Amino acid sequence: MVIKKNERKTEIKEKMRDGEGSVRITHFVDTENENHTRMLAEITLNKGCSIGYHQHVNETEYFFISSGAGIVNDNGKEVEVSAGDSVVTGNASWHSIKNTGDEPLVLTAVIITYDE
Amino acid sequence: MVIKKNERKTEIKEKMRDGEGSVRITHFVDTENENHTRMLAEITLNKGCSIGYHQHVNETEYFFISSGAGIVNDNGKEVEVSAGDSVVTGNASWHSIKNTGDEPLVLTAVIITYDE
Repeated sequence: MVIKKNERKTEIKEKMRDGEGSVRITHFVDTENENHTRMLAEITLNKGCSIGYHQHVNETEYFFISSGAGIVNDNGKEVEVSAGDSVVTGNASWHSIKNTGDEPLVLTAVIITYDE
Repeated sequence: MVIKKNERKTEIKEKMRDGEGSVRITHFVDTENENHTRMLAEITLNKGCSIGYHQHVNETEYFFISSGAGIVNDNGKEVEVSAGDSVVTGNASWHSIKNTGDEPLVLTAVIITYDE
């Protein structure tokens, strides 16, 4: 199946996971009928925006950062991230991410679920 | 866990799946100990290069195309693809991809396995 760029669905979430500002999520694929995934998307955080600190239980989320710069709280440890870096959060660990640069922070987000 | 850009491993595969030329695979994450995945990588196909036609049984592969242009054989149907398009190949379906443009064709590849 090929999903063309103009068929992708985009949503804006305000104060996602109690973060600051808004987050744009462009879904590459609607995962409703896909195996072992609940998100395959591009996420854009504009300057100053963030996704708040939250836990991933029974699933792993991967961030692949494609542009911009920010700070990740990686299960209690703050780490600077930029294009080319990856973040892995699973097995009940926690994370947050905040754009601390001047340019949009853009990443691919993949959530793999363990049970279905 | 944060994996920095310079910690990623890159491999070059020649004639991948009986395709033409070579394919560069930069692994965002080593998936050996990750749940339900066997690839999380950026794949680059230079001009004229391809990954040959092959089947995905008991797993789904997703391509998220970030730059360039090419042709996908999507389980028997040829479709032109370019940046922003996604390809979903699972449940024993087949695909190939060939760079038909002048620029490198770059995509994120995610393989989700059903059984482990």
